[in-house]
Amino acid sequence: MHFDYSPKTQALLDRLNQFMDEHIYPVEQEYIELVDNNPQRWTTPALMHELKEKAKKADLWNLFLPEEYLPYGAGLTNLEYAPLCEAMGRVLWSPEVFNCSAPDTGNMEVLSKYGSEAHKKQWLEPLLNGEIRSAFAMTEPAVASSDATNIETAIVRDGDEYVINGRKWYTSGAMNTNCKIMVVMGKTDTSAERHRQQSQILVPMDTPGVTVVRPMKAIGFYDEPIGHAEVLFENVRVPASNLLVGEGEGFAIAQGRLGPGRIHHCMRLIGCAQRALDLACERVEQRIAFGQPLSKQQSVRESIAQMHCDIEQARLLTLKAADKMDRYGNKVARDIIAAIKIVAPNMACRVIDQSIQMHGAAGTSQDFVLSAIYAYARTIKLADGPDQVHMMQLGRNLIKDHVGANKK
Amino acid sequence: MHFDYSPKTQALLDRLNQFMDEHIYPVEQEYIELVDNNPQRWTTPALMHELKEKAKKADLWNLFLPEEYLPYGAGLTNLEYAPLCEAMGRVLWSPEVFNCSAPDTGNMEVLSKYGSEAHKKQWLEPLLNGEIRSAFAMTEPAVASSDATNIETAIVRDGDEYVINGRKWYTSGAMNTNCKIMVVMGKTDTSAERHRQQSQILVPMDTPGVTVVRPMKAIGFYDEPIGHAEVLFENVRVPASNLLVGEGEGFAIAQGRLGPGRIHHCMRLIGCAQRALDLACERVEQRIAFGQPLSKQQSVRESIAQMHCDIEQARLLTLKAADKMDRYGNKVARDIIAAIKIVAPNMACRVIDQSIQMHGAAGTSQDFVLSAIYAYARTIKLADGPDQVHMMQLGRNLIKDHVGANKK
Amino acid sequence: MHFDYSPKTQALLDRLNQFMDEHIYPVEQEYIELVDNNPQRWTTPALMHELKEKAKKADLWNLFLPEEYLPYGAGLTNLEYAPLCEAMGRVLWSPEVFNCSAPDTGNMEVLSKYGSEAHKKQWLEPLLNGEIRSAFAMTEPAVASSDATNIETAIVRDGDEYVINGRKWYTSGAMNTNCKIMVVMGKTDTSAERHRQQSQILVPMDTPGVTVVRPMKAIGFYDEPIGHAEVLFENVRVPASNLLVGEGEGFAIAQGRLGPGRIHHCMRLIGCAQRALDLACERVEQRIAFGQPLSKQQSVRESIAQMHCDIEQARLLTLKAADKMDRYGNKVARDIIAAIKIVAPNMACRVIDQSIQMHGAAGTSQDFVLSAIYAYARTIKLADGPDQVHMMQLGRNLIKDHVGANKK
Amino acid sequence: MHFDYSPKTQALLDRLNQFMDEHIYPVEQEYIELVDNNPQRWTTPALMHELKEKAKKADLWNLFLPEEYLPYGAGLTNLEYAPLCEAMGRVLWSPEVFNCSAPDTGNMEVLSKYGSEAHKKQWLEPLLNGEIRSAFAMTEPAVASSDATNIETAIVRDGDEYVINGRKWYTSGAMNTNCKIMVVMGKTDTSAERHRQQSQILVPMDTPGVTVVRPMKAIGFYDEPIGHAEVLFENVRVPASNLLVGEGEGFAIAQGRLGPGRIHHCMRLIGCAQRALDLACERVEQRIAFGQPLSKQQSVRESIAQMHCDIEQARLLTLKAADKMDRYGNKVARDIIAAIKIVAPNMACRVIDQSIQMHGAAGTSQDFVLSAIYAYARTIKLADGPDQVHMMQLGRNLIKDHVGANKK
Repeated sequence: MHFDYSPKTQALLDRLNQFMDEHIYPVEQEYIELVDNNPQRWTTPALMHELKEKAKKADLWNLFLPEEYLPYGAGLTNLEYAPLCEAMGRVLWSPEVFNCSAPDTGNMEVLSKYGSEAHKKQWLEPLLNGEIRSAFAMTEPAVASSDATNIETAIVRDGDEYVINGRKWYTSGAMNTNCKIMVVMGKTDTSAERHRQQSQILVPMDTPGVTVVRPMKAIGFYDEPIGHAEVLFENVRVPASNLLVGEGEGFAIAQGRLGPGRIHHCMRLIGCAQRALDLACERVEQRIAFGQPLSKQQSVRESIAQMHCDIEQARLLTLKAADKMDRYGNKVARDIIAAIKIVAPNMACRVIDQSIQMHGAAGTSQDFVLSAIYAYARTIKLADGPDQVHMMQLGRNLIKDHVGANKK
Repeated sequence: MHFDYSPKTQALLDRLNQFMDEHIYPVEQEYIELVDNNPQRWTTPALMHELKEKAKKADLWNLFLPEEYLPYGAGLTNLEYAPLCEAMGRVLWSPEVFNCSAPDTGNMEVLSKYGSEAHKKQWLEPLLNGEIRSAFAMTEPAVASSDATNIETAIVRDGDEYVINGRKWYTSGAMNTNCKIMVVMGKTDTSAERHRQQSQILVPMDTPGVTVVRPMKAIGFYDEPIGHAEVLFENVRVPASNLLVGEGEGFAIAQGRLGPGRIHHCMRLIGCAQRALDLACERVEQRIAFGQPLSKQQSVRESIAQMHCDIEQARLLTLKAADKMDRYGNKVARDIIAAIKIVAPNMACRVIDQSIQMHGAAGTSQDFVLSAIYAYARTIKLADGPDQVHMMQLGRNLIKDHVGANKK
Repeated sequence: MHFDYSPKTQALLDRLNQFMDEHIYPVEQEYIELVDNNPQRWTTPALMHELKEKAKKADLWNLFLPEEYLPYGAGLTNLEYAPLCEAMGRVLWSPEVFNCSAPDTGNMEVLSKYGSEAHKKQWLEPLLNGEIRSAFAMTEPAVASSDATNIETAIVRDGDEYVINGRKWYTSGAMNTNCKIMVVMGKTDTSAERHRQQSQILVPMDTPGVTVVRPMKAIGFYDEPIGHAEVLFENVRVPASNLLVGEGEGFAIAQGRLGPGRIHHCMRLIGCAQRALDLACERVEQRIAFGQPLSKQQSVRESIAQMHCDIEQARLLTLKAADKMDRYGNKVARDIIAAIKIVAPNMACRVIDQSIQMHGAAGTSQDFVLSAIYAYARTIKLADGPDQVHMMQLGRNLIKDHVGANKK
Repeated sequence: MHFDYSPKTQALLDRLNQFMDEHIYPVEQEYIELVDNNPQRWTTPALMHELKEKAKKADLWNLFLPEEYLPYGAGLTNLEYAPLCEAMGRVLWSPEVFNCSAPDTGNMEVLSKYGSEAHKKQWLEPLLNGEIRSAFAMTEPAVASSDATNIETAIVRDGDEYVINGRKWYTSGAMNTNCKIMVVMGKTDTSAERHRQQSQILVPMDTPGVTVVRPMKAIGFYDEPIGHAEVLFENVRVPASNLLVGEGEGFAIAQGRLGPGRIHHCMRLIGCAQRALDLACERVEQRIAFGQPLSKQQSVRESIAQMHCDIEQARLLTLKAADKMDRYGNKVARDIIAAIKIVAPNMACRVIDQSIQMHGAAGTSQDFVLSAIYAYARTIKLADGPDQVHMMQLGRNLIKDHVGANKK
């Protein structure tokens, strides 16, 4: 056990931070305003494409894909990727620059693992090159989707095709004009065992019967130019070969993608929270109230200290989870992944909220990233499973393990 | 001491609730979409004007103005108005229907108390009739405005005029096309004693030199069609008679308006929180997860119980504050007004956040009012003085009172 | 609705406070040391008997018994009694001085309501005169007694007698040498409907087969000279007439006593919390650290303010509960009684804990009452039903009421 | 960076756990009752001496002393010692078995570093052999000792002697009949620079003028047979050679000892918290309420999950602090030591409190260790510097570091 980053990780992190200092932070606010003011707000601005080219040249590309996916990706372990992902998390829109943004990361993993050669050629390669974007359609408005067995979208075999009917929402990515492909979760057999009813299937965005109904807000934000779409599927027909792996494998595929997906969110949220703390440190030193800088007030110092303690603890837990995934696999790491999924969004919400408070009205404004990252953190308390589901599973497992171990 | 509403209050509340059931709730979402989608989003929709006429006819108009302002207003005590204000708070945009919305309420009080006959004729009467709207320009981007002595906007006498220079933001109301008049806080004498430097002055929106720079977001929301503006004052000239009361009275006028303003916010926030709880009760009964309605889960019941306890306590404290203002005056009630200003927004943030969580993704969406009322509640932790300033004053006073009383 | 105490209440409160200033506070610490150091620590010190005589003479006696029990007691409403009970709560051992201490209060109510004339003569009168003490044996070590249907103690009819077998603990009062009578909860019919199995029966302490096994600690405190006993019942025989009301009435009698019992605990806890805040105000003014009194620190002021807000809210909720019990009866007030039972102990724990922290090491010592009142507050989160049971019931009722009301 | 214990650590931990399973847990309650019931409660029971012999034979002795102190101690790094210290922390009285209990550990470090050969011979060797015990007299009742510059005890040179006058309390260890030596902090020069006024001096317990006034309670517990004493120093004379290092070095010596002392407390508190969680897991599986084991309730699972997350995060932060002390020294690790001192006691208080709640009345009783370990955890929020002082320093340093680094 030791707690310093490896030289390899540290070197990568230094390069990434330098890239962000040079190319990202200076245009952070400009990019936000581009999509906020642009009437074509669902079209990715040219600025993004320029930055992507720079990131490719700087060899900071597809960092998220672990060794098992080589030759795709950078072949980093989760533990190596963690601090990089955290650094990207400091600017909400920056992961895309490095082709490390959700839901593409999960979709690329799924396509790498389960896609046919044709799928890889058609969808995976342009995704890996950052040429197109993708979406993952899982959550449904009509049911509590936290219980995946509730999902109602029907995927019905009809000759050489599957026919899809259903309504999804919060399909992240599907608003973007460059989004070309969706992975859709639905049920192929409602009479099967509870976790064998679901399947996942590839649906090109331009398939007839697919309607992007509207963008959904998440705590006031549309997250342009990516967005979260409500999508209607009406007799959508795709070739049977678009089904991933086989009927009944949908739940297992979903489980597989959620481990890495969750830890990436946690890493980014730690970046968000650290950013909020850094901004707070700066602000309280500048602002004068009642005769002295805010930074001289005991209550401000207490808050700053507490924010740091909260962040550092969540960071360590996330790093340990990454290490466990690397050494023992995602299944063995299940409980610690649940743990960080509980801890990180709550921590980030608390920390960012305190930073907002220290910023005064400015903290609630569009001039600071704080309210946007708060909305992101708040949303993750629900996305990929609400806190309560993770706590239910973790709590149940801990009790079971304890009783099994017959501990003192 | 007793805890039932008076028959008069109860009757008014019943009438108001009936009005809301008939006229407000059925169009709540429609109104939100009108301003959200309207390219002229800063123009109040016709629907509002229709509703205002109905409210006038129903004799539910200007309910906020206490007895001392008669013949203006309904002559209710704060204690009588409190449950009405709470009921209006359940729908964010509804207080305007009853001509009870900030910042007009505060401005009408100020004009009633301190305005000349000419001011009353020109500004107060159309405000009382709901024909125009108004703004209050206090907070400045450049300084910690929580300490009012920091304010930098200059109001300089020049012959029969005052010349105003400065930059304000979060000037609520100033985006609206029907906003005609601003009350502006600035400094007339930076060499005077700390609380005698400030003055307040009336500035018509169309005065040359006034520029509405941009709308400010508050936790992701623009709050159309009212909005929070950044306003630039460049050599803005108004007649000297526009100064309220006299030079150096600005701080005292501000203090006077903040008491009622704060308690109204608290009442509305209690309405918001109660709404969030009501929505949660409905949701958890409907949603099925893991084989049973959410309402059967012990953790959900615990949350619901806690939300209720939090709301009910804050409500009682607010009612007691109203009663104290009525009986002993706003100055004597200073500490309990500080107390509710600390308690109510934090309570509302907690309660609404829990309701969002129980709603799942829907809770973060535009289909429910939850994220908008969360943003409102969160903003009030800063508006009219951040929590920390109220806690500083309340804590200091409590210690002083205790030492004075020489209690056991 | 209004929020001032009635003149009658205020006059009583003034008299009570004067009595406490003159007779209780000056000997508060002395009394604690008497029982702490006394080898006969379960014998009530003579000082208590002297103080009781004074209280009787001052006509501050049996204040807890409401009007319906006249001619017994002072005939105060719950709302009138509340501030008195709070004032007594400021000194842990003082309620006994006024014959207002648990569990005697509950036992006296039960005996007044359900006792035969013989019971009243033998037990109620000496209790009302403060000559003897009593105990209530309900909680059992072997089962989760929060679910009263779990209780296992057997009360079996045998001719003209009942035979009792079982083991109780946390039988408050039973350690005291002056405790003469126990009310015992047990089961007379394990085949009856769940809430009709229980009965309550009078058991004199000196009945053969009753063994006081040991005193139980509550968070480190034995609460001498009253104590919480483990009591073993081995073939304990009492006359059949000792059964209260009739077989199967035990659960209903328990419910009846718990309403007033719970609100009295809450009132006392508010007194404890207010005392902790008063002590904190005094301490932070006296102690100097890092160059200034603690009272000048923003964080200390914030804590003091928050403590006050918490106390005042819980106080109002408790007063409203008292008012509701008075006007509509204990059954109708069920939900608000649950609410205060959830709110008050948690509030008191938080407030006292903050006061301990402000006192430094002294706050943890026997020189201040803080750790003892903390232990009391912490215990009440479990006694008379753990928080979770109250939250379960309150949450369930709120959801049911909401759905019934079909609210917006 | 990696997160598995080293094979050496794991092997030691296995041996230690085996020892605890065999020798400690089976007599845990017996030992507590021995000192609780023993009229000579300040005399260490024979059982302790027997266990010490066993621990020596098992080569589990003086594990706390790091490599720099070799040949004294086991030469473990802080990181190696951490999980061992945690394991010992599971039973409050067990650290002494391994000669790893405060305040002896700190005193042995101080004597090793700063003691003369004569001091080492006379005091250090018997301490290292576990033959005697020692105390550290720092906190004073009259002043806020959290600010060490407040300390008033006078150490005045008089020829070849120093004369000590003052009053200390919470002098842990000084009640024990086997305590032979005290390290006393006082002032040799009140006119020197603030952090050069203090000195530390060795005072044998039997020196004339030393009076052990009384044992102090800590949240209801006397912590027999070690105890926390109030000690009076009246013209206490010791040889001038008893002064450690030199006049004015007292503050620096105190700082040196507090780093390791604080991290040891944190490690033990993590053990306490983990114990509380293990006990909770067991309890909720056994107890039936309302028709099912508590472990089936969603709210219980949520609590268990949260407790685990809290513990695991604090553990990782503490391990990282140990690693930093090992690699970079205690001074560089200053901020992370402050962080764990803030985090661990609060975490332990929360976790233990939740476990108490799950245990019902039993959780507050002497039959479970929960209330005793709660009292320990609560006390550490004050001992070795209250939370607020650590937060002040950590907050200040973080702001300073941030401004220095000019971060984004």
